[in-house]
Amino acid sequence: MFPGMLGYSLAGKALAAGKVRLEAVQIRDFATDKHASVDDSPFGGGAGLVLRADVLDRALRSVTVPGGDRPVIYLSPRGTPLTQARVIELAEGPGPVLLCGRYEGVDQRVLDAWGMEEISVGDYVLSGGEPAALVLLDACIRLLPGVMGNETTTVEESFSHGLLEYPHYTRPAEWDGRGVPPVLLSGNHAEIARWRLAEAEAVTRARRPDLMQAYQARTAPAKR
Amino acid sequence: MFPGMLGYSLAGKALAAGKVRLEAVQIRDFATDKHASVDDSPFGGGAGLVLRADVLDRALRSVTVPGGDRPVIYLSPRGTPLTQARVIELAEGPGPVLLCGRYEGVDQRVLDAWGMEEISVGDYVLSGGEPAALVLLDACIRLLPGVMGNETTTVEESFSHGLLEYPHYTRPAEWDGRGVPPVLLSGNHAEIARWRLAEAEAVTRARRPDLMQAYQARTAPAKR
Repeated sequence: MFPGMLGYSLAGKALAAGKVRLEAVQIRDFATDKHASVDDSPFGGGAGLVLRADVLDRALRSVTVPGGDRPVIYLSPRGTPLTQARVIELAEGPGPVLLCGRYEGVDQRVLDAWGMEEISVGDYVLSGGEPAALVLLDACIRLLPGVMGNETTTVEESFSHGLLEYPHYTRPAEWDGRGVPPVLLSGNHAEIARWRLAEAEAVTRARRPDLMQAYQARTAPAKR
Repeated sequence: MFPGMLGYSLAGKALAAGKVRLEAVQIRDFATDKHASVDDSPFGGGAGLVLRADVLDRALRSVTVPGGDRPVIYLSPRGTPLTQARVIELAEGPGPVLLCGRYEGVDQRVLDAWGMEEISVGDYVLSGGEPAALVLLDACIRLLPGVMGNETTTVEESFSHGLLEYPHYTRPAEWDGRGVPPVLLSGNHAEIARWRLAEAEAVTRARRPDLMQAYQARTAPAKR
């Protein structure tokens, strides 16, 4: 499953150039019984299986130590929602250790013993933690030095203002009977900036009232 | 990049067994100039490149038609946040067409012309739409008939109540000096259910006040 999609494009080039290192650990290698079992039925009953604390603890200790420098993160729908701010912190750090569970979950004691951070990539259910780990890694890798070049992306500027992005247009100037908003062809940079801000505010208001409320609270602190 | 991680585990078996079909389309194949260019500078100036409406329109028409049965979705941080409810609808439908952009974006006119749904998998920036598409596909594929068997997962029950999941414990009963909450060993199913609900409410209150507020609004409609 790893590097999977991360073996291509930006992340693939970064991996090939040694700008980033990705090590996948097979949890099953840390089972000790003859069936190599890593999970068992939940105490108290219920569907599904739970990953064992002892097996996970050994797997984690093969790559780090409790209380070490590297953040140890369990990807789980129970976690704190991933934000771009946390992505930036993780990209600037020594590199996270990511625990991918099955979604019936892992024994709570290993989360407690490691004081593990729990992160969710969104309010939906995945087949396991791996697609979530891939998303987190992709978001971090593109921020590492030399991976994207010096590109500043407007989406990042937009996110840092807390607004969704304004619409984009490129050639051809006329397509399928549709033109381009005249202001974008005006060469008036102040007008263009005003139009883009108004569009970003409009799409944010329409689609993400939660972000709009936070944006307004930040940008108009004097108004009550 | 596709099937990537989806070539393994649950999704991989479903693909191999023909329970799901995944077709990747290379947008570059629909360029018409001699440089096979798919993007160009944004009108109005700014960093990055924008995917061309005419090229994307041809790529989309190679797999579907505007107004056809299949939902056509652009994966973008500007989109409506993906929810498990939308995942379930998509899994029950004829299968979506997913447009993966670069994050500088696509020409707005192709989104307008196709009346395209825009979905975001979370408030973070990815290298492109592909990791987001993988997450959406994984979430849908696991729900298709015969992919997971008849497992009902507690996380899904939990999500459908709008709460985060309660903690899980499995053997060994004692690990690293840590036991299991005695109620889970009591055999008293009513007590266990009460404990789990209280734990689910507590973790939701602590980590996701937004979900807790919505849950309380639903479960206590009589209180004002």
